[in-house]
Amino acid sequence: MNPGPDPTMSQRLARSELTRDDVVVDLAGFRRELAAARAHTYTNAERVPLSELAEWHAQGGVIRHTSGKFFTVQGLEVRVPTGAVPQWTQPIINQPEVGILGILVKEFDGVLHCLMQLKAEPGNVNGIQLSPTVQATRSNYMRVHGGNPTPYLGYFRDRTRHRVVLDVRQSEQGAWFLRKRNRNMIIEVTEPVEVVDGYHWLTLAQLGELLAVDDLVNMDTRSVLSCVPFAGTVPADLAADHDEDGHTLVASWAGGGPSRHSTTDVLSWITERRTATDIELRQVPLHEMPGWRYEDTGISHVSERFFDVIGVRVDARGREVGQWDQPMFAARGTGLVAFLMTRFDGVPHVLVHARVEPGFTDVVELAPTVQCIPDTYRRMPREDWPPFLEEVLWADPDAIRFDTVQSEEGGRFYRTRSRHVIVETDDLPSHPDFRWLTPHQLTSLLPHSNYVNVQGRSMLTCLRALATTGLAAAARPAPPTERAA
Amino acid sequence: MNPGPDPTMSQRLARSELTRDDVVVDLAGFRRELAAARAHTYTNAERVPLSELAEWHAQGGVIRHTSGKFFTVQGLEVRVPTGAVPQWTQPIINQPEVGILGILVKEFDGVLHCLMQLKAEPGNVNGIQLSPTVQATRSNYMRVHGGNPTPYLGYFRDRTRHRVVLDVRQSEQGAWFLRKRNRNMIIEVTEPVEVVDGYHWLTLAQLGELLAVDDLVNMDTRSVLSCVPFAGTVPADLAADHDEDGHTLVASWAGGGPSRHSTTDVLSWITERRTATDIELRQVPLHEMPGWRYEDTGISHVSERFFDVIGVRVDARGREVGQWDQPMFAARGTGLVAFLMTRFDGVPHVLVHARVEPGFTDVVELAPTVQCIPDTYRRMPREDWPPFLEEVLWADPDAIRFDTVQSEEGGRFYRTRSRHVIVETDDLPSHPDFRWLTPHQLTSLLPHSNYVNVQGRSMLTCLRALATTGLAAAARPAPPTERAA
Repeated sequence: MNPGPDPTMSQRLARSELTRDDVVVDLAGFRRELAAARAHTYTNAERVPLSELAEWHAQGGVIRHTSGKFFTVQGLEVRVPTGAVPQWTQPIINQPEVGILGILVKEFDGVLHCLMQLKAEPGNVNGIQLSPTVQATRSNYMRVHGGNPTPYLGYFRDRTRHRVVLDVRQSEQGAWFLRKRNRNMIIEVTEPVEVVDGYHWLTLAQLGELLAVDDLVNMDTRSVLSCVPFAGTVPADLAADHDEDGHTLVASWAGGGPSRHSTTDVLSWITERRTATDIELRQVPLHEMPGWRYEDTGISHVSERFFDVIGVRVDARGREVGQWDQPMFAARGTGLVAFLMTRFDGVPHVLVHARVEPGFTDVVELAPTVQCIPDTYRRMPREDWPPFLEEVLWADPDAIRFDTVQSEEGGRFYRTRSRHVIVETDDLPSHPDFRWLTPHQLTSLLPHSNYVNVQGRSMLTCLRALATTGLAAAARPAPPTERAA
Repeated sequence: MNPGPDPTMSQRLARSELTRDDVVVDLAGFRRELAAARAHTYTNAERVPLSELAEWHAQGGVIRHTSGKFFTVQGLEVRVPTGAVPQWTQPIINQPEVGILGILVKEFDGVLHCLMQLKAEPGNVNGIQLSPTVQATRSNYMRVHGGNPTPYLGYFRDRTRHRVVLDVRQSEQGAWFLRKRNRNMIIEVTEPVEVVDGYHWLTLAQLGELLAVDDLVNMDTRSVLSCVPFAGTVPADLAADHDEDGHTLVASWAGGGPSRHSTTDVLSWITERRTATDIELRQVPLHEMPGWRYEDTGISHVSERFFDVIGVRVDARGREVGQWDQPMFAARGTGLVAFLMTRFDGVPHVLVHARVEPGFTDVVELAPTVQCIPDTYRRMPREDWPPFLEEVLWADPDAIRFDTVQSEEGGRFYRTRSRHVIVETDDLPSHPDFRWLTPHQLTSLLPHSNYVNVQGRSMLTCLRALATTGLAAAARPAPPTERAA
């Protein structure tokens, strides 16, 4: 059994990925709708002391909702004896419920379109971002906090009449969530679908183009799109439309191309990293975490680095109306996720990190070359920096193939963003925790859980957009530490 | 990236799977060696009270080794609100170390051979069974209990000079082990290998033939063999040697053949079962488990069903010499694992169960159609039996294609065995927790962790042996409850 779907479906997805014109909604029209929506739909998030969060309380060193639902914030002691930092303590979100991130697709004029939602989340820097058709925790869709039923949820819960294109549980941020997984789904319908206000049919090519806009395509959308299986071959009538660089990438995805390491060796490397790494987790009370200050204004590290746990009061206006309080995580400074990319025999490869995060279900997942908050290292000696951070921060602007700021999920993360960068290089550094993989190799692991972390998936979606749309955002020569200020 | 290895390797494995004659060691010679080994190598396991186990002690309701290594036996409370039994308590083995189960392969006269070990384990009913080249926990190979270095371990720890054929962590019994995984490996060497006394080079075909012998090919060997990737096509000069039934099975494995459910639908079904099932685990002291008696002679269920935790004093003679004490699990009665098999459009399919076991890392794994200890249900009403138990116990003898008793791993399980049965049927029952999959579909999931449980893998190896050797053990009409007495 090959993990990809049947060739017909992957050909149809490839067609959507390469079709941006003559479609249901043109991008100019979509941008007008987006501007209009931003005028009348928003969530206002006002910071409030943790002790004043309605329906949330701290008990036994854990912050919980009175219903027992949604999520808790707890303290975690992590021991990784073989790691660069062998032991630390941190707050973490425990949300055992598996939510649904689902995109509904339907064919119009022979091209698959995705039903995307303009959705306001309290943590978003810009109010509205482009979300999957359904983005719901189980507490959401079981309507624990009242509210309206989730539109289109039925298509994802009763799949008997529809076609499943994708259905896999993927991890979320392993540094901030304890073993959280969401169900990434794509369901194809052939029956008529009523388009609710705030929803739009877009092709994969259009979504790819929108990925070059800062903070527009939300994290959940990027995660689901990364799992879209790619065609064995690109439809012949479309392949010629792309420039040489884009073409090479498309070819790499499509046929796989010769890869630096065999499949078997890549899987063996992952097994080796998982086996060689001991990780021990122990829950500790939030007010007993060495190095952290638990104050009413928030929980912060004494070094003023990493992230804060804060309280917010949310006031939502627009399609969803309501007011609620909740804790959120707020990163200190803009993150950086980056792939170093090179070509072996003309086939693009990205440098992938076998990364350990405390919240992973199976010790290690594949991550971008660099994944960090550069501010953390601003005052630290160069030898303590993560591998390859320097290569990305000081990359020749001409070598930067993609550079866009993307947001983390705005339901849990407050104005938390990461610069997404792809740097092409001829340097071929060697490091036991890193391997050069083709995008095709990464994508082929995504029908399975626990292989590629959410930052890796997000970057893969950007890389794919780069390949299929030939977009390259303007290079930004300044190091991100200045932009993060 | 396809999860299988390169076609050359899978062709070479297929050749080994179909070559039983003109090989390094003939089976008659091997059987003589086995008989001779049984005369001078054994481990004698004498039952002793739990309180008298040297270097083991119970503390806080957990049985531990004084070194803190090896494993612990602890109490576990399991809640599965949606399960047939929504809540229970049981002892379970906690062995967080990932061991190595490794088979060394080498080509002789164009045919790959596996270096197999005649190994005595204290729990074996018959002293010696056929083990992988290396079968070692980390405590073993780090020599926590002293002892000799593990032969051939170096090939599996430093793989740079050798070829990795397989390297994947697979689960062990989820009912008896808490999240235990072992690293299943196959490494090919081309350099000369000195054959230590007690080791033998056998082809995959020979191993397949030996699977029809009760209690000979041990659990670890069966697990590793199940992960052997199968060829896209069978070597042309060999395919014609097999009878029509065997042929069909080989063809199914080889080419995949049309399957009842698509890959995508099978993965979606697994995702659905994992998402729909809430499972909560809580550690409890061994002496506070409702329904269990903790006595010096062992820990037993008041119903005298399921299994016992016992103490044994081991006296090993032969290649490995030594004496040690340890706790073991001893099942009450012989287990039954069975596949119902049918053909859709001539392609064999087996009925697979999406099974929940407390020790699984990811909630659900695919298991045989039936997996139970039939004695457990002897006095229970038919409606409380596991699905399809009846179909297997009362199968028409002519429909039984395979029927052999195989042992559980003799390092932890005391004389614990399971009848392995394949029943061909024309009935096509439908049940939401079961699906018809081709052997090819199952095998193709095995480069990845958490998909097929150890009983499923063991059965898959038997099914494969049936396909490739055309062996069919004599049908046994008596229900296994009588044989288990």
